[in-house]
Amino acid sequence: MARIVVLTEGRSDPLSAKTAVNLIRYRRDEMVAILDSTSRGMTSQQLFAIGGDLPVIATLEEAPEADALVIGIAPAGGKIPRPWRPILLDAIQRGMTIVSGLHDFLSDDAELAAAAQRAGTRLVDVRKNNERAVAKQLGIRNECLRVLTIGNDCSVGKMVAAIEIARGLQEAGHDAKFVATGQTGIMIEGDGCPVDCVVADFVNGAAERLVLANQHHDILLVEGQGSLFHPSFSSVTLGLLHGCLPDGMVVCYEAGRKTARGVDHVSVPSVGETKRIYESMASVMHPGRVVGVAVNGRHLSDSELARECRRVRDQLQVPACDVMRTGSGELVDAVLALKRELGK
Amino acid sequence: MARIVVLTEGRSDPLSAKTAVNLIRYRRDEMVAILDSTSRGMTSQQLFAIGGDLPVIATLEEAPEADALVIGIAPAGGKIPRPWRPILLDAIQRGMTIVSGLHDFLSDDAELAAAAQRAGTRLVDVRKNNERAVAKQLGIRNECLRVLTIGNDCSVGKMVAAIEIARGLQEAGHDAKFVATGQTGIMIEGDGCPVDCVVADFVNGAAERLVLANQHHDILLVEGQGSLFHPSFSSVTLGLLHGCLPDGMVVCYEAGRKTARGVDHVSVPSVGETKRIYESMASVMHPGRVVGVAVNGRHLSDSELARECRRVRDQLQVPACDVMRTGSGELVDAVLALKRELGK
Repeated sequence: MARIVVLTEGRSDPLSAKTAVNLIRYRRDEMVAILDSTSRGMTSQQLFAIGGDLPVIATLEEAPEADALVIGIAPAGGKIPRPWRPILLDAIQRGMTIVSGLHDFLSDDAELAAAAQRAGTRLVDVRKNNERAVAKQLGIRNECLRVLTIGNDCSVGKMVAAIEIARGLQEAGHDAKFVATGQTGIMIEGDGCPVDCVVADFVNGAAERLVLANQHHDILLVEGQGSLFHPSFSSVTLGLLHGCLPDGMVVCYEAGRKTARGVDHVSVPSVGETKRIYESMASVMHPGRVVGVAVNGRHLSDSELARECRRVRDQLQVPACDVMRTGSGELVDAVLALKRELGK
Repeated sequence: MARIVVLTEGRSDPLSAKTAVNLIRYRRDEMVAILDSTSRGMTSQQLFAIGGDLPVIATLEEAPEADALVIGIAPAGGKIPRPWRPILLDAIQRGMTIVSGLHDFLSDDAELAAAAQRAGTRLVDVRKNNERAVAKQLGIRNECLRVLTIGNDCSVGKMVAAIEIARGLQEAGHDAKFVATGQTGIMIEGDGCPVDCVVADFVNGAAERLVLANQHHDILLVEGQGSLFHPSFSSVTLGLLHGCLPDGMVVCYEAGRKTARGVDHVSVPSVGETKRIYESMASVMHPGRVVGVAVNGRHLSDSELARECRRVRDQLQVPACDVMRTGSGELVDAVLALKRELGK
């Protein structure tokens, strides 16, 4: 991928379009435009509060230099929105590579697959996998420190926290690796495993394989998925927790969020309850403990955020900060303190 | 299915061949023979301690009346054993329906699929599914009592306990339904969902759909899967727990089992610890409590079993019995007591 248009047509709210937002955040240099005819003429900054002057366009004609179209949404259920079909066919006819993280594979879609074959273009389904290993808890290198980001809900910032802590560690000279477990993380990092699309019996195994494949690094920052408290996705979350056996965990949450994403009648737990349940479930396999909190303060003023971080820090006795607003320094220090404590 | 040969070739230990053993237990009238050339001439009773004079044969020629071949093993990983391929091809050429619960689908195997097409026979993959619903915790009928069998390990008797309690309730005149969640249970009951073969994001949803589809009954006995303590399969177990939201749970364990199935370096927890962790994780979504214990006493004498049941009963203050040895009566009463207590 080099010259990317990201597609969010009609769905450019920041939570729905979280794949787009994070590609713009971490691969801005390769982005050419956002395609959403309902927001045409805006900039990325105006639409997503990130990305500066990256333009929002209405048709692919406006970005003739683009060679890849990336689907920028991650809907629960993972289906191709019907109105997007003509856009995808147009991109295919222009010879663009189409990259998708949806559960519905483009390459399994007869119409799209036939069009791609005719045009000689590639359909890349990031979630497609053939994981078939069961976890055995064998061969794990004890000296490699494993840290997992966890959440009290979906879409609270687990991927961003893992990336920012890994980068902070790298900048401080440590051999740290961000381990991607979801479609957006994989698009950003270039490797990883889409654990939420693995056949259920092999989820723990897929997570364990990620550890085995990356444990030559000193520190792994594993991207969390879902939440043990989310009605739809707790299965994936536990498989990841038990497959990667974290020594440390960083709790992520969005300040002000009251109900679970996609299920408004279900409330989200407190940070303290989140810590309690994850530590309890981790300890079934391996002692893991919460070493910090990544507060997503996107709805808070600076003073509100400072107050919220203080409150959480006092309550849990671990560092708390918003990695997008004040950097990941405190959490990097917390990870390094755990590393020293465990003699890893 | 009407005249069944069950295939366990070379793998007739009772744990590996648990699909075979339970088909013989619950569909004995339809069984014609067991196919295992390494045990030819034995009876089912001699081989599996069940099934009376059902013969063990070496080739399909010895059972010309058979019209279905059922794969009788359930290996972790779910692959077709290589040496079985000629047997499957022979069965196909004889026009037999092949029924498989393996993760590797027969119908996706080019050689087997081509042979079946030529012979005009059916390949039935019980685990094949296209589950794509996420759980929402909506539309659940509160008056329907949900009971889930749970375990401290795999292969301890969760399916048998659920079937026996459901049958006990039915015999006492109640509208109870066994809800199958695994390949063997589905073969026995004729419906259900293979939750361990669902794409990870939809496991909770598949379990919820089973509840929604069956909640016109008064009492559901849901077949548990795996264990929250099993390194390989805890993800599936939690998805089922959070998808079916049990009011009551029955703990299943095998007396004397010290280590987790397939991972000998991992020990299994006590019954008390099993109760504590499952109740904690259930309560994240819905209050559910352990109402009884199904002891699998296959390695115990009658007096040892009686002592073990007494010990567990004293410790947890709930009924404990071996449903295969002494019937499910005590557990049926415990389910009915919970139903009364909850006013369902």
